[in-house]
Amino acid sequence: MTKKRIAIDMDEVIADTLEKFLNVCNTELALNLTKSDLTGRNLWDVIGKEHFPTLKGFVSEQDFFADLDVMPDSQDVIRRLMERYEVFISSAAMEVPTSFAAKFDWLKLHFGFIPASHIVFCGDKSIIDADYLIDDNARHFERFRGEGLLYSAPHNLLVEGYRRVNNWLEVEALFR
Amino acid sequence: MTKKRIAIDMDEVIADTLEKFLNVCNTELALNLTKSDLTGRNLWDVIGKEHFPTLKGFVSEQDFFADLDVMPDSQDVIRRLMERYEVFISSAAMEVPTSFAAKFDWLKLHFGFIPASHIVFCGDKSIIDADYLIDDNARHFERFRGEGLLYSAPHNLLVEGYRRVNNWLEVEALFR
Repeated sequence: MTKKRIAIDMDEVIADTLEKFLNVCNTELALNLTKSDLTGRNLWDVIGKEHFPTLKGFVSEQDFFADLDVMPDSQDVIRRLMERYEVFISSAAMEVPTSFAAKFDWLKLHFGFIPASHIVFCGDKSIIDADYLIDDNARHFERFRGEGLLYSAPHNLLVEGYRRVNNWLEVEALFR
Repeated sequence: MTKKRIAIDMDEVIADTLEKFLNVCNTELALNLTKSDLTGRNLWDVIGKEHFPTLKGFVSEQDFFADLDVMPDSQDVIRRLMERYEVFISSAAMEVPTSFAAKFDWLKLHFGFIPASHIVFCGDKSIIDADYLIDDNARHFERFRGEGLLYSAPHNLLVEGYRRVNNWLEVEALFR
């Protein structure tokens, strides 16, 4: 029997991008932001337009995505899911073209057990042919042919209409 | 009505990668290869193992994919197809991770009318959710959910079992 397919986003799902963003905002832009400031709001809507050029500069540095922390339990759970599902990583990397190499290297380092053939850098994720897509951005679910599972992040806490997972142990329980 | 989707490969479909390969083989490896030497055979099976390290070195240089010629008529035909179809570019870029940036820049330069959101760098193209995939490698059609259209290249001239297109004017005629 063909294994069902799970596609998994990177930023804020397996990689703690938000932690890095807050770090940069607080140290480099002298802001004083916490995760709770971002409930239901996108970081870019919170920081103020005057900070856009500086933050964009940091994000487009080639190594911005190189040292992100791994989300707790994501490695172990994905390794176990791969026994029963076909797993792809799908990152909307086209939004930050300078990030390709760093993202690829980060995946090799922390998720080396996922073959390179199962990594996808894309933009519009409706191009992904999978049964499930675990993502923190519900916009990717609109034209996606499978089921979107919303991985909780401060910015999406007010979003309704999708099954939600709050951490990787909940992901594992959902697929058990 | 939702537009049907066409996914289009890069190398040897919209970009003349083979011309570049032959050029490098003949000038740098002092071989004397022509396209007809490659009928039904992969370049790597023809050149001899002793040349692998050198050729791999050239291919993994960051700008190897930067100056490829555009396949005749591909720009005009794709532009016209986009009026009636949703077009994605899907490149198996994961095979040469150093190629991401050069491939992205090449697309911006020659196919700037295709939005970045519709560019996909992947490995296993069965992850592509499209109605048609135009590709020179039939292996990508095996698990693809749509119809594979084989874009003729010397290496695939003996492959059977798929509708074949020999150039971009034939692609246009097929979708008319």
